[in-house]
Amino acid sequence: VTDRRPPVGEFEWIARLVEILGGTAAPAGRPEIGDDVARIAGPDGTQWAWTVDTLVEDVHFRFDWLDPAPVGHRALTASLSDLAAGGAGPVGALVVLAGPPATIAERAEGIYRGIGDLARKSGCPILGGDLSRAAGPLHVTATALGRAPQGVLTRSGAEPGDAVWVTGRLGAPAAAIELLAADPAAGRAHAAYGRLAWPEARLDEIAWLRQRAPIHAVIDLSDGLSGDARHVAERSAVRLVLEADRVPIHPAALDAAGPDPARARAWALHGGEEFELLLCAPAGALAPLVEEFTARFDLPLTRIGTVAEGAGVAARGADGETPLEPRSWDHFG
Amino acid sequence: VTDRRPPVGEFEWIARLVEILGGTAAPAGRPEIGDDVARIAGPDGTQWAWTVDTLVEDVHFRFDWLDPAPVGHRALTASLSDLAAGGAGPVGALVVLAGPPATIAERAEGIYRGIGDLARKSGCPILGGDLSRAAGPLHVTATALGRAPQGVLTRSGAEPGDAVWVTGRLGAPAAAIELLAADPAAGRAHAAYGRLAWPEARLDEIAWLRQRAPIHAVIDLSDGLSGDARHVAERSAVRLVLEADRVPIHPAALDAAGPDPARARAWALHGGEEFELLLCAPAGALAPLVEEFTARFDLPLTRIGTVAEGAGVAARGADGETPLEPRSWDHFG
Repeated sequence: VTDRRPPVGEFEWIARLVEILGGTAAPAGRPEIGDDVARIAGPDGTQWAWTVDTLVEDVHFRFDWLDPAPVGHRALTASLSDLAAGGAGPVGALVVLAGPPATIAERAEGIYRGIGDLARKSGCPILGGDLSRAAGPLHVTATALGRAPQGVLTRSGAEPGDAVWVTGRLGAPAAAIELLAADPAAGRAHAAYGRLAWPEARLDEIAWLRQRAPIHAVIDLSDGLSGDARHVAERSAVRLVLEADRVPIHPAALDAAGPDPARARAWALHGGEEFELLLCAPAGALAPLVEEFTARFDLPLTRIGTVAEGAGVAARGADGETPLEPRSWDHFG
Repeated sequence: VTDRRPPVGEFEWIARLVEILGGTAAPAGRPEIGDDVARIAGPDGTQWAWTVDTLVEDVHFRFDWLDPAPVGHRALTASLSDLAAGGAGPVGALVVLAGPPATIAERAEGIYRGIGDLARKSGCPILGGDLSRAAGPLHVTATALGRAPQGVLTRSGAEPGDAVWVTGRLGAPAAAIELLAADPAAGRAHAAYGRLAWPEARLDEIAWLRQRAPIHAVIDLSDGLSGDARHVAERSAVRLVLEADRVPIHPAALDAAGPDPARARAWALHGGEEFELLLCAPAGALAPLVEEFTARFDLPLTRIGTVAEGAGVAARGADGETPLEPRSWDHFG
């Protein structure tokens, strides 16, 4: 949350990871490094989705901004949201805490309570884990496993002509981070704070949609809309054209932005730390479902653009198309 | 490797973990927190085994003792050995590195190579992972998933009357640690070093045994024979009586102990950092397999005791039974 810049050359390292480790997969089981989840086929053909995420103190969270329970909640949500992006329902999770004994003594119970409450609510039992002493910051790692009877969704299936949709309303987590950075007490008191502290993985929403319409590609917005739209464009070898003024902005972000709504729009476009989903589906497939979806989940489902041939991500405004560059790292750097 | 003492109250924290998180499991899916692996049933009834292990720099390894490739090798071996203890064959793994950018730039490639080479050799493709900056020590986390068509083995199935067996010869990793602590260069040059740097998970061995004999309980010796025997005794609600002078000692440990073979025996009984397996099986079940096992895997399989009614772990010597207390923490503290 405080410093989301990648390690020097993170993307180069991920490329090396694929190069060094990619060859370890059997020819029939190409590794899906770069997707939200790894995909595994069971002996009966059932597809399983699997993910792991580590949150590091003072990189992904700060204890003066978040109490232990929301830290645990966010750690499990990160993995559950990956399962949602894979169109999978949770089967279980394992949790690792590693940090100084004093930190563990002070924070572990709250973190476990945050994890446990979400595990019960989302039907994702915690089946085990690990606990280790470590100097330095606390690391909270969750790995989650899910099943996708209809197959695992990826970032790579978007097709020219698809419509681009987004769940929920964006920008509140980034707003909360700016407010906290300026004044932790005021930040905690603002309406935007809840979206940062208690985010929701869209597991039920994606399951409901998949039963009613074809979905070609999905990603969760952990890196921010502009950055994650780029991941879909790259992996699907297409161009995403977003109508920036259709992107739904969370009212708490608008409130936090005060007299400058452009700040709220920037949070919504680039802010990240969201667990909303971006979906690509055939034109006309989701529109008939919007009313029932919104009523059922008390959540907007908004068409924000189209998929075209080409590459990259563009914002289409009154003055035509302009490239939409990710700003998420700069925003938090 | 340098400081294996648990965080203050680790065992109390694990008890709290079970209390807080245990209730998240569905009634039919009691969490197996405390076993080497979590157990999951697929829709077709196939049992899956799942584990996660974190190695922390300066707790579980030191870069002045181990090059990056063995660090990666050990990280994946820890998870593969858990699968072996569960009687499962590997399906895949995810890997997380978290540390300072300078450490990642200097060490990640070697760590990935150690992981990748073992992944290929053991048929366990690396399917994804995570990479994060973090201040402080490097954390290397591996989570591995396996399938157990014959069902997942646990620590809890030992029965009075069973024989207790161990694979391989013990004590070399602990010997290597003592040698390294005294003189890193001399430690690296000693024959015991290879057992610390390049340990082997007994995946093929357990698969072969299970096809030929009933196995009631298994654990890998990561905490040391005395400590891990206690885990089996507690989880199975039985007493393990070990014939201490039957425990096979690795020749490199005897060499390192020099004129004091009692040191080598202490390393073998308490040292830990082993990935050999302790097995409990019906009396007479494994003895007929020893010759073929040893020839096939170039590895001893040795009966070292029996399972009795009662509790705890005892060593049976010339002067009767004495309690065998774990000394693994003291040994490295």
